[in-house]
Formats: sequence, C-alpha cells, structure tokens
Amino acid sequence: MSSFGEHFRVTTYGESHCRSVGCIVENVPPGMQLDSQDIHRQLNRRRPGQSVLNSPRNEKDRIEIQSGIENGVTLGTPIALMVRNEDTRPQDYKRSKIDQYPRPSHADWTYLEKYGIKASSGGGRSSARETIGRVAAGAIAEKYLYQAHGIEIVAFVSSVGSEKLFPRTVDQLILEPHSEFEHLLKTVTREQVDSYAPVRCPHPLGASRMGQVISTYRDRKDSIGGSVTCVIRNAPTGLGEPAFHKLEAMLSFAMMSIPASKGFEIGSGFDGTEFPGSIHNDAFIPSGASSPASRNPSSIFSSPRLTTKTNNSGGVQGGISNGAPIYFRVGFKPPATIGKTQNTTSFDMEPGVLEVQGRHDPCVVPRAVPIVESMAAIVLMDAILAQQARLSARSLLPPIDQSQLALNAVKEMTINEKCEKRLLSVRFRGGKCKETCCEGGEGALGRQGQAAELGQ
Amino acid sequence: MSSFGEHFRVTTYGESHCRSVGCIVENVPPGMQLDSQDIHRQLNRRRPGQSVLNSPRNEKDRIEIQSGIENGVTLGTPIALMVRNEDTRPQDYKRSKIDQYPRPSHADWTYLEKYGIKASSGGGRSSARETIGRVAAGAIAEKYLYQAHGIEIVAFVSSVGSEKLFPRTVDQLILEPHSEFEHLLKTVTREQVDSYAPVRCPHPLGASRMGQVISTYRDRKDSIGGSVTCVIRNAPTGLGEPAFHKLEAMLSFAMMSIPASKGFEIGSGFDGTEFPGSIHNDAFIPSGASSPASRNPSSIFSSPRLTTKTNNSGGVQGGISNGAPIYFRVGFKPPATIGKTQNTTSFDMEPGVLEVQGRHDPCVVPRAVPIVESMAAIVLMDAILAQQARLSARSLLPPIDQSQLALNAVKEMTINEKCEKRLLSVRFRGGKCKETCCEGGEGALGRQGQAAELGQ
Amino acid sequence: MSSFGEHFRVTTYGESHCRSVGCIVENVPPGMQLDSQDIHRQLNRRRPGQSVLNSPRNEKDRIEIQSGIENGVTLGTPIALMVRNEDTRPQDYKRSKIDQYPRPSHADWTYLEKYGIKASSGGGRSSARETIGRVAAGAIAEKYLYQAHGIEIVAFVSSVGSEKLFPRTVDQLILEPHSEFEHLLKTVTREQVDSYAPVRCPHPLGASRMGQVISTYRDRKDSIGGSVTCVIRNAPTGLGEPAFHKLEAMLSFAMMSIPASKGFEIGSGFDGTEFPGSIHNDAFIPSGASSPASRNPSSIFSSPRLTTKTNNSGGVQGGISNGAPIYFRVGFKPPATIGKTQNTTSFDMEPGVLEVQGRHDPCVVPRAVPIVESMAAIVLMDAILAQQARLSARSLLPPIDQSQLALNAVKEMTINEKCEKRLLSVRFRGGKCKETCCEGGEGALGRQGQAAELGQ
Amino acid sequence: MSSFGEHFRVTTYGESHCRSVGCIVENVPPGMQLDSQDIHRQLNRRRPGQSVLNSPRNEKDRIEIQSGIENGVTLGTPIALMVRNEDTRPQDYKRSKIDQYPRPSHADWTYLEKYGIKASSGGGRSSARETIGRVAAGAIAEKYLYQAHGIEIVAFVSSVGSEKLFPRTVDQLILEPHSEFEHLLKTVTREQVDSYAPVRCPHPLGASRMGQVISTYRDRKDSIGGSVTCVIRNAPTGLGEPAFHKLEAMLSFAMMSIPASKGFEIGSGFDGTEFPGSIHNDAFIPSGASSPASRNPSSIFSSPRLTTKTNNSGGVQGGISNGAPIYFRVGFKPPATIGKTQNTTSFDMEPGVLEVQGRHDPCVVPRAVPIVESMAAIVLMDAILAQQARLSARSLLPPIDQSQLALNAVKEMTINEKCEKRLLSVRFRGGKCKETCCEGGEGALGRQGQAAELGQ
Repeated sequence: MSSFGEHFRVTTYGESHCRSVGCIVENVPPGMQLDSQDIHRQLNRRRPGQSVLNSPRNEKDRIEIQSGIENGVTLGTPIALMVRNEDTRPQDYKRSKIDQYPRPSHADWTYLEKYGIKASSGGGRSSARETIGRVAAGAIAEKYLYQAHGIEIVAFVSSVGSEKLFPRTVDQLILEPHSEFEHLLKTVTREQVDSYAPVRCPHPLGASRMGQVISTYRDRKDSIGGSVTCVIRNAPTGLGEPAFHKLEAMLSFAMMSIPASKGFEIGSGFDGTEFPGSIHNDAFIPSGASSPASRNPSSIFSSPRLTTKTNNSGGVQGGISNGAPIYFRVGFKPPATIGKTQNTTSFDMEPGVLEVQGRHDPCVVPRAVPIVESMAAIVLMDAILAQQARLSARSLLPPIDQSQLALNAVKEMTINEKCEKRLLSVRFRGGKCKETCCEGGEGALGRQGQAAELGQ
Repeated sequence: MSSFGEHFRVTTYGESHCRSVGCIVENVPPGMQLDSQDIHRQLNRRRPGQSVLNSPRNEKDRIEIQSGIENGVTLGTPIALMVRNEDTRPQDYKRSKIDQYPRPSHADWTYLEKYGIKASSGGGRSSARETIGRVAAGAIAEKYLYQAHGIEIVAFVSSVGSEKLFPRTVDQLILEPHSEFEHLLKTVTREQVDSYAPVRCPHPLGASRMGQVISTYRDRKDSIGGSVTCVIRNAPTGLGEPAFHKLEAMLSFAMMSIPASKGFEIGSGFDGTEFPGSIHNDAFIPSGASSPASRNPSSIFSSPRLTTKTNNSGGVQGGISNGAPIYFRVGFKPPATIGKTQNTTSFDMEPGVLEVQGRHDPCVVPRAVPIVESMAAIVLMDAILAQQARLSARSLLPPIDQSQLALNAVKEMTINEKCEKRLLSVRFRGGKCKETCCEGGEGALGRQGQAAELGQ
Repeated sequence: MSSFGEHFRVTTYGESHCRSVGCIVENVPPGMQLDSQDIHRQLNRRRPGQSVLNSPRNEKDRIEIQSGIENGVTLGTPIALMVRNEDTRPQDYKRSKIDQYPRPSHADWTYLEKYGIKASSGGGRSSARETIGRVAAGAIAEKYLYQAHGIEIVAFVSSVGSEKLFPRTVDQLILEPHSEFEHLLKTVTREQVDSYAPVRCPHPLGASRMGQVISTYRDRKDSIGGSVTCVIRNAPTGLGEPAFHKLEAMLSFAMMSIPASKGFEIGSGFDGTEFPGSIHNDAFIPSGASSPASRNPSSIFSSPRLTTKTNNSGGVQGGISNGAPIYFRVGFKPPATIGKTQNTTSFDMEPGVLEVQGRHDPCVVPRAVPIVESMAAIVLMDAILAQQARLSARSLLPPIDQSQLALNAVKEMTINEKCEKRLLSVRFRGGKCKETCCEGGEGALGRQGQAAELGQ
Repeated sequence: MSSFGEHFRVTTYGESHCRSVGCIVENVPPGMQLDSQDIHRQLNRRRPGQSVLNSPRNEKDRIEIQSGIENGVTLGTPIALMVRNEDTRPQDYKRSKIDQYPRPSHADWTYLEKYGIKASSGGGRSSARETIGRVAAGAIAEKYLYQAHGIEIVAFVSSVGSEKLFPRTVDQLILEPHSEFEHLLKTVTREQVDSYAPVRCPHPLGASRMGQVISTYRDRKDSIGGSVTCVIRNAPTGLGEPAFHKLEAMLSFAMMSIPASKGFEIGSGFDGTEFPGSIHNDAFIPSGASSPASRNPSSIFSSPRLTTKTNNSGGVQGGISNGAPIYFRVGFKPPATIGKTQNTTSFDMEPGVLEVQGRHDPCVVPRAVPIVESMAAIVLMDAILAQQARLSARSLLPPIDQSQLALNAVKEMTINEKCEKRLLSVRFRGGKCKETCCEGGEGALGRQGQAAELGQ
C-alpha cells in the first residue's frame, strides 16, 4: 500500500509522467488555519532548478487543494492535494537508450520485474516527483506541531562525498561536550540552512568545500552521494509506541523510504557502537525551568522533571522520546542517472553502452533537506496524535483506589495461579512508590493486608 | 499498536515480569509442516546463558503453541505462541536502587513518562524478552521462505567496539570485487556462525579479538556496542512496495525496532555516499542459468534474465529486490544496564549513585544475531506474500488486446484533456517495447492508427 | 486478519479443539483498575450450561491474564488473555458421521474449501468458543466506557422464532411515542435481563412464550432462530468516522461477524423504510439540563445543546452519534447443528443421512446477549478513542484569527482558480455564523475586504 | 480513516462543495485494460437528473484519471480518480434556513458536534457526492472480477415504502423452491434492471406501483424509503476471512456505510430467524459439471465438488463463500431533506420552522442500485485478493510428508504437555481422512507408531 502513518495518514499517488502527483492526508485536526502558502513554502524548497548545482528541470509544483479546507480552516476531513505534471518532456528520457537499457542502480529493471509492465518514465513511482505528496503532507504536519507544541524540525547537509561537516559526530558529543555540533543542533534554523544555498550546509567552510565537490562531479557528468542530518526540538516526552513502532524505528522507516537513501542512524549511531556503556550512557539531571511542554499552557503533556546530561541517545530511549533534541542522520547514494557512458546490458540481454541525455541532479542531498524534514514531521505527527489520544483517554479515568488496589492484586494472583514469591511494584507518575510482596497462600494475604494498612 | 506486517502479521505482548510473553502470528499459509522444534531452534540461539560472555540468566524459553497448528500442520488460522516467564527474580532488579533511579539510557524513565505508570520491571516492554515473540514468528516465516523459495537468511557479528570484521565494507566491494566480504555473503551458514560461539563472528581472528573486547568490558562491569551484518540469499525479484514500503525501508523499520539498535545501512550504506555514481552504479549483466526462482518448479516467480556485476545496491533498487543477495548492517549501542556505578538523578530529582546488581549482558550483538535474522524473515515474508498475491492476481487476467490498446489510449486522452504532445510507451515483461505518440486532435488518432497498423 | 478496531484493537486466536482460545487487546488506556473478575462477569454470562435450555457442555472458561496488568492496574501495554480448552471431547463430534459429512449450513465445508485442510473441530474458528476473546476484550472496553463516560450497554432477546417482544418496533416509536419500547430502551438493565433467565427477554409474558418455543424445538432435536436488541446509553455526540467507518457501519460489521448472525438494523431499520420523511425525521429540541457529557466533570466532550424529539435514527445521524440512545437489532439464524437426521452429501460426494450426536444449543440468542454487548463495547471504545484523540488534538491549537481568515480565504481562491461566485461559510461550534462571498477577480478581493471590515 | 479494504484499498476524499471529490485506489492488479469508459458506465447510472423521479441537479461527473494507468493498461500503482464539483450552487442550500437550522435526521448537527466546525454544505462528507469515489473504485473492481472470474454483480430495487417486489423473501425460498425470486437471482441483468427505469425494479407491475409511490411523495414535497437487493453470481468458494472479516460482515460494513442505509440482511435474513434449523439448513448436493471456477482455465481456484440444494445461507457459511449465489438486502430510510415544512430547533436553540428549497431526491433507492453494486464489488475484490494470495502461497509449499506428520504430532504433544486423550484428525482437501489418537506417555507413542505403520 502507498500510505504511511496510523493516526495521521498520508496516501500518495502518481508517476512522474502521468497527469498529476498528489496525496490524501487523513486525520488533520479540525480548526487549524491552513492555506496553500503553508504548503508552498516547503514545496519551493524541494523544487529542482533552484541553482546551477541542481537539475534544471523547471517544475512549478503549484499545489491545488481539493478538499478538507474551507475558508482557510481545516474541516477535519481528508485533505486531497494535487500537483499537475506539466513539464514532462518524456522524449528526453526516451532519446536513444533509456527504453532499451535499464539504468544501472535505478528502478527501471525492478519495476518491470515487479509489475510485469513498465511505465514510460521507467522507474514508475521511484521518482523524485513522488516526494511532492510527502512534502505537502509534511507541511501540514509541521504547522500543527509548531502551533500546538512549538516543535521545530530542521535538516541540513552534513556531508557530500568525503567532505564532512564534522569529522566524527560521536566525538563531538561524547569527548567534547558543549561542542560545536551540540550547539548547531540547538540553534540551527531553516533560514540559516537556506542562506548556505545551494548546498544547505550551515557552515561557511563546509558549504564551500561541498559545493566544490558537487561542481566537480557535475562537470564530469557524474554524481556524488552525501548525508543529511536532522534535528527535532521541543518534542514532548512519551512519543513512540512499543514494541515495533519505536520512534527511531518509524523515523528510520520514513527516511529509508526516501528515494536514494541507503543508511540511517540516530543519536551516536554507528560511531556510538564503539564506546562502552559507562561513557555512552546519558546520565539524568533535573530538567530545570524551561521544558518543551511549558510552551503551550493548555498542553496535555506535563513538563518533564528530568533531562539528560549528554544526548548520545538522540532524544529517544527504549523507543520513546525523552524530551531532549531528537537528531539523526540519513545517507544518500550518488544519483543513478548520470550523463557519463556506462557499460551495461539491455532489457533484451544485449550488452551495450548507455549514455543518458536528459536532466539529472549531480547530488540529491541539498534537495533532500526538505523531504527529510517532511517525513520527520509526518512521523512526529503520527506519534504525537497517538500519545495525545492516550493521555486524553487516561485523563478521563477516575483516580486509582489504592486500598482496593492492594486487595485486588492479591485476589488476582490467588485466583489465577499458585503464588510464587512474586514482587508487585507500581510507581505512579508524580506519585510515590508502592511495593508489595506476596509469598503465596495465606501468607500473601497477610503481608498484603499489612501493606494496605501501611497506607499504600 | 504492537504489530508488524500487513500480509504476515505478528502481534506481540508481554513485559519481562508478567506471566508470559508471546505473540499471535496471522496469515501463515495453510498446509505447512511446522512443529515446536522449528521454533525452538532459533529460540535457543536467542537464549541468554549460553556462555560466560552472556547474561547468566537461565531462561528456558519453552514455546507453547496454542492454536493454528494441528497434527504438525498449519491450519492457516492464527498461531498463538506463548513462553512463560519462569525465572523472573524481580528482587534482583529491585534491590535498593533500581526503583528509585531510572537507569541511564534505559527505558525506565520514558515508560513512566509515556504511560504515567511503571511496571515492576522498569522498562516495560523494552526488554530483551519482548524479542521472544519476534524470534518465534520469524522461525515460522523462515520455514516458509526456505520451503517455498529456498531463501536463506544468515546474520553474523561484524564488529564489537572498534574491532571490525573488515576494515571498510565498501572498499571490499567496490575497490576489491570478488573480495573476502563478497565471498562470505555468498557462502556463510548459521552453522559456521555458531561454530564461532560465543561471539558469532565467522572469522577465526575476528572472533578471537572481539571475544577479547567483550571479556574486557565484562570484567570492568561495563558494556560495549557492536554491529551485526545480515545477508538474505535467493530472494526473488519484485519484493518491496512503493512508495513507503520499500524493501529497505521495511528492513530498516524492523531492525531499528530491535532494542538497543541505533543504526541501519543497506548495501554500500554510509560508505557508499562517498563514491561517485560512475563507480557506485551496479551495471547489468545476463543472469546466467542458475537463478533463485528456478529452485521451485511450481514457482509463480519467473527467473530473472539480468543480474548486476557488482552489488553496491545491496540487492534492492528503487525499493524493490533485484534478485542479488540482500545485505545490510545494524549497529547496536552498548547495553545501558551496567554494574559499574553511575552518577545520576532519581525519579524524585535527587542526585545519587546507581549501582545495578542483577544480571546483564556486556554486549548484545551475539544474541542479536537470531533476532536480526527473525525480523528479516518477517519482513521478507510480508513482502513475498504481497508480491505472490500480485503475480497471482495478474495471472488470472486475459492477455492484453494490443490493437484495442492503441485505440483506448487515444480515446482516453482525447476524452480527458486536450492532448499535449504526450508520449505513450508501454513495455510488457518479456515482451517487446511499444511506443506511440499522439499530437492532439485528429492527428493523434492518425498517428495512433498507424502505430496500431505497425503491429504494436 | 483476525483483528478488529483501529484505536482499540482486539486480535483473537484459537479453534475449539486446540490448546486455548484468547486474544491480545491493544491500546487499553493505562491507569485503569482491572482484574479478572471484571472479565469473568461477562464471560460467565456467555458460558453454556447455564440452564437446561442451553448446551450442557461444561466449560469453565477461566480467564488467565498474561500481560499488561500489574497489581490490578492496566499498564497501557497489550493485554493478552487466555482461556484453556479443557472439555474438548472431540469424540462426540467424531462419532461416525461428522468427519464424513459436512454439516449443512455449518462451516465444515467452507473451511475445507478455504484452507484446503480441515481442523478436527470441523468448522475451524467458526465456533462459539471463538467469541470468548471478544467477550473478554469487550469487558475491558465497557469498564472504560462506564468509568470514563457512564456509558451503559444492555442487550436483550427481542424475538425467538415468530414470538416477538413487540409486534412491530417502528410503530412503537413513530406511531406511539413514549411507548413501552422507548421506556424499555431507557431503563433496561443487565440485572433485569438476567432475571428472565434463561431466555433473557425482559418481559414476563414474552420470556415465557419464547422459553416455550425453545423447549419445543429442543425436544424435537431441532433448533430455532431469534433476534437480540441492544441499547447504548450516554454515548457522547461525535462518535463514528466518515465516510466508511460510520458508527452504524462499524456496529453492523461487528454484529455480522458474530457466528450465526444474518441481519442487522439500526433505529427504525427495515420498518422505517416504509415511512415518509415527514414522519420519520427526528425533529430537534433543546437538550435540557442532563446530558451525557455532564457525567464526567473532566470530560473532553462538551454537553450537547440539542437532542431529538423522536429517535428513529437510533442515535446516529450521518454515521455520527447525536447523543440519543443508540439501539439496533441483530437477527440470528437457527443453529445449524441439530440432532434430527438430515439428508445430505458427504465430503466424498456420497449421498447419505447425517445424525449428529454431541451437544448443541437449540437457540443461540440467550447466549448471544453478552456477545452482542461486548462487540458493541469494542466498537464504541474504538470510536470514542478516535474522537477523544480529535478533540484533544484540536484543543491544543490556538484560536482562529478571524480577520486573517477572511484574507486567507480570498488568497486561497484567487491563487488556485478563477473564482466562480463561490460562497464561503464557516460555522464554529458554539460560535457565530460567518458568510463571505467572492465574485472573482478584483471584485472578490473588494467584497472580501468589506467583509473583513464588517468584523467577520 | 476514510479508507476501505485491506488488499484492495479505496481512500475517498471530498465534500459536496469543495473543488472535487475522488479517491485513490490501491493494489489494482497490473496489466488490466481499463479506460475511463469502464468507470463512466457505472458513474452514469449513479448520476442524479436521470428522470423526473430523481433530483434534477445536473452533475456531469466526468472522471479524470490522474495516475496508475498508461495507454489504457493498469500499471499496478495507485490509481487516483477525480471528479470536479461543477454545479455546486451553495446558495440553494443557504437560502433562508439551512444555515440556521440543522436539518432533522441529516448530518448537519452531528458534523458540527464532531469537528466543531461546519462546512458550507452542512453535512460535510455525508453527501451523495461522496459516493462517486466508491462507484469509480467499484467499477475497477468489477472489471477485474468479471475478467478474471466471470463474477457478475446485479442490484435492483426490491421495495419502495410498503410496496414490495415479493411479499416475503424467505417463503419464496424455503416454502417455494424454484420460486420466482430464486429465478430472478439467477438471471437478472443490469440491462433488465435499467429497462425498468427510473425505478429499477425488474418487474413490470412492481416497477409501476413503486414509481407511483415515489411520484406521490415527490408531489407532496415529502420523501419515502425503500430497499435494494443485490446478487453476486459466480463467486468462487473460500472468500471471507475469519473471525471478524467474515464475508457477510464485510458486506454489511460496506452497505451500512452508504448514506441513508439503516438495515442489512443476507440470505434468509430476519425472516429466516423464524424457521427451525431442520427446514432452514441448506443440504449439500453434488455440484455437477458447471461450477464457477471452471470459467477461467488458469484459475487458481479449483472447482467445488458440492453445492447446496436450497440457499437460505445466501451463499455464505461460517463467513466464507460456498460457491452459491450471494444475495443480500439493504434498507434505506426516506431522505432527510424534504421540501415540506418541519418544526424543529435552530443551532442556537431557537424553535422555528424549516422549509428547504433546493434540490432533493424523493427516494434514494433507484440511485442506490449502482452504489450497492460498487460496494459489493469492492468487498468481493478485497476478499478474492486475500484468498488468491493464500492459495498462491500454499501452492508453493512441498507436499506434506505424511509419515513424518504422525511422528511430529506425537512429539509436539509429549513435549508440550501431559497428553490427555487427545484426538488428532486432519483432512486434506481432495485427500483422505486421517485420524490418530494418543493416550499419553509411552502409550501414545505406541499407538501413534501403529498409526504410522498403517500408512497414514
């Protein structure tokens, strides 16, 4: 299926050469002000043709809102979004070879294997245009996240080829606390990132060196890979669902579904695997006055009382957000479509040489920045709606009758099985710790009785 | 929700200190021979207490099949699996500290934030025991995958701390084709991997050095991270669903949902981002005689005619398997629970020192090996059932009437919009290429008519 | 798949002759007091062997809670529930015939056709025991519904064979307002219903006549059908999701999934199709002081200001609850397994006579009462969690900037398409009506500007 | 969420006064010829304005295919379909009252309660136009069902007000086998149904009397209800998934999600509840030569060897299709929007009189006919894709090793629990019956050993 999310669901459609691409976004909260400008802002950042470093393909990507919004306010019903495919020019792709040769490392061959039929665009839905629906949906999600929670999501280019923004991330965090990297995560804005156009690496020297690398490969009719780092600030605690839908699992799922992505790591990531627990563990400290949840006075989230000294976890522990900045990195391979000649084999098993004319990006990472942000927004939105639902559901329950509780616990156990020295312990959020122990038979009841007397 | 998969669905339950852990597995094909031994084989590999390098906790992990199998044959109905929690000994965890201090980098704190209530085990479902259900379900999946398609899934430890099996994976593939790494991917078996117990690195020197690293940290009451590499052989082409459910996205989702995982990369991964497309692209070559699909004579999958010379893509292009071995790497952080004292803060915001008694692994990667294999099997099973359904659905359709086709195409376009010089091209799997062009109005019909005459 | 619900999900497993039947219940709100007694109460009402009118099969149906509850309080994690199959006695079913002849109108034949394999119990999961998981899950749902919202769900037998509690329901509602039927819906309790055991028709004369019918068919070794009516009181407004997941659609889905059900109708149902709109329509009236939402002071639902004079809609309009009692009726066919001889054909296509020994109910409706209630509770729970999530999500948004709104609306339209005299009207809950009209081009902006000045 | 189906999924969007309505259809098999004419055929039958008996609203309902089809052939990717809202004329709805008074028994009030915001059209997505997406998606489904399986779906009007096509359905089936009703189910075509336009009751006298009833209520500015009966012919056996997704449950879910539907019954339905099992049960007979599966030589479905003498089950037993015609009935209430004055209460709790000008149908059932057919097609498509997937998955497994089987069974049992005289019996489709019994301990092995020797 072509949909993502359980509570905030995005279903996309469209190949790069059909009439339009778009999506249906379900479960947008009603009563939110939203207009097409909110969406265009991110779509424009995704557009190719923004500089000589990118593909010169001129797509206007004008969004048309079909439903779910009236008079600039969301109705709570599905929002259908559509962007026409205007500048298709399939002849570029067709000329000479591309219909005879599956492009190496592209989706031409696998789509034909999967469906037994090939669309004129070759790679079917495996197209950069497919991401338009994601970015449009992400723009809706991030408007809610910011308005309701002050959540900020910023991505930037952290490497191109072997040029890296920082030599080794984990060292910046573990060995040099309060490092430049940590500072960047806390302060970087989209404006800053875009000011380093076209590379989108928010660092003068880094941006310049990476731009150089891209130019070099563009001039060679070749391509080069890179990576994007993304940070999510002000996310409340409690996001992410066990066991499979851990927050990092959903982020990873989302990022690895972006075309050309080949790797994902959260927090200290692969580098962190080389450190011992005694250094890598993030010790707890009191969170202090300013915490994310305090930003919205009507917030259903209470302000967390603890935070961590370091943040090697990347804001996620046990699959659940802990209130610290969530950050992760996505690796993108070099684009498969290159102008340089390639020795390969045709659909009909004839060896030959492929030379693609057409238009293509020498490096996807600058354009991937808003796509990474959008997918992160969709994941966060899904997780936050799930957690808001839980907190809301819980808030309607009467307080727990503690004396009844102890009694129930024993009844439960004696009814169900012979008690085998089983410790019972319940800690309530913001409350006291309660521990009871039952040793089986009458004894259990006795101890439990005592526990109840002691005011548990 | 606690379930994974759309076509083969696993729903798990259980905390480490409740009565049992287990799962319900839905959509297991009917008529497959399956007994508890098939499942125990993998469960035993997951069990702790297999060597001094692992946690000495003695869990018997005896699976009890509740339903869906009769007389050793699957009925096609849900299979419920259950493993009792026998050796809980929560007092180990309780002693003095663990109920007052959330363990740094563990799930104790985030679970309390999420649910507002803490289970006696602290981290709720974020427990190694939660993976029992996954391994059991994975064992069912891999039996089907092997019986129906000859698919083999083998994982092994590829690094512990800074000790790596190979210095840099991508060099082994790109710069040294037919390398030791490539050979390992093609030949490694579970028996080989287990013969290097307890480290499970299928290399004499590597295993010895990694074992040394683990011992060192165990003796220091500390822990260390590492990584697991997994290869899937004989997977047919066409697995993975656009746009979000790409095969690598689902694998990444699955792997990042395993406790303690912090990173995922497929094929050349992060290293591959440093190479140009002209080197990184996997050129096509004829596949030769022996291809995966040929292993089962009644296979619904046809034998792919092409394969790739190199395999930097990791067996997946555009999110869809291409028939080459699928391989990926998962990074695991050092276990959070360590015996060494840690300065941290209590649930009640009091600073203090945490020293956990109890039992714990100094390194999770050897035990993670069967978990990685199981999650890979579940993802493959889900993807293969989806693709088998598609091929089966397609096979029931009548062949396409080509002459009718050309006519329809024009009608379609002239009905729907003014024709804007639109290229139409359809390639059928195993068939010839067809291209038609319509220029609008009568002209389109004319050209199309000619195209039809030309026998397309 | 064997699961039901999106926000409160129940996945069941188990055939009648495997080791156990049970379910996993996901998304139970954390912090709710729950013990096995809460569940046994309904399970006991479902049990056969409660009287001579029912099947004498003695199933103890003792629930074993595997996870998700500790010390009598829900943890918010999946609750696995299990009931062992103790008294299977398959030899009853086996004797002579049942393995040779598919029982007419039973599932023996279709299960074999579907799976290509037949479980020893014949009908696979199409067994009354499969409903144990539903009733257990429903008991959890209804505890929440009552504790959080005071919602009451009561079902009762409304017909057996041609004996009906009321001659024609719709006449009781439309032609005789304040009728006996309306009174019953408002007041009936489970205690009352059970006081008319074993028939569960809360009416002295009806219960007696229906009991007579059941006895007659039991003595003839035959069976008879009947119907169950169910009422849900105190449900808040706003439950049910367009377009497919309308509340009545989900109720119908749930009821028609109960074994032996053949029909569903809500409100005036089929009888209502015979009336004109002018009589059938439920006019609105002010709701007065006591409304459902007022029962819980911390309710996220506000008290509805309107209600309806009549309730032919059955509490649901446009698929969404309107605050009035929700009531519906479910028709159950006569049980297929009868002692009387039947001329039929064997699996091997041999004609013959089937005479089933074994144990069987002459009429399912008395035992269906708690099953109908449980499925209704699951549907309501799913719908209420969805709506609570929406209200909670909305409550975190800032108020709408009305002046900005008018401006946005025009921008939206003039950007997107040539304006075609389009009326814009937004009504906010509890607020005033706002109407703006734009006539296209400059004019639109002008009028809109005026509208904005007028304080919209 | 606004989607329906797990294997063939339809997600709809659109209010009646937004820019367009439409849907995304996922998992359409690739390689099927499909053009907009296939869809328009059914859309035209849904359109209002077809006769004086219907609403004169002139909607052209021209479908625009956005994606997933190229050159008249499905690509296997999502098909997005769109129909513009051209003739909105919201002023009709606005005039005088409709913005002040929620229409009785309409969705105006409940949508405002649900979302806290009201669209200009009042009832939000609860509009007849919302069904356009369903009909379009259904047209795709039914093309596949017919091409791959010869499945025919025909609906017709079976009652208007108190005028019924047949006095009592069940009598026509049970008491009068080979009745007029049975004949109609077997032979009725859409052409026949449409020949009785505008009422769509395929019976001269019935159509005339029902048309009279509709005219009467139209002239009174009132409305009237009715019912639609639908038959599905040539469906293979094995469709429908236990336990919740029974075929009748999914049909009921689908039908009750159609606006204005209030009741659903399958087979003998509510009438059947009045009959004893001995009469109601459908005895098995050999199916004879011509069976549904034989229509497609490449069918994955084998031809069923049995059928039933009568068909009170409505083609479904235990939730699974048995190869006989599937038929059901849907009841629709009188339309809520009437021209006649109604005493009611405004949104602001003021009593008053509502008189709706505008356009409205006096009776929905003639237009509901294609909607019922379309939803039936979507349900069948979902069920058939699920079953094809299962049969395909099963066909790839090796045959069961029978001798191994017996041994496994005993091992399974002796490992897992003390054996309690448990009967094991497996019947394979088209194979022989196998029965083994184990009495526990060594004895079991002994008997099992013997059983194995006996060639099981």
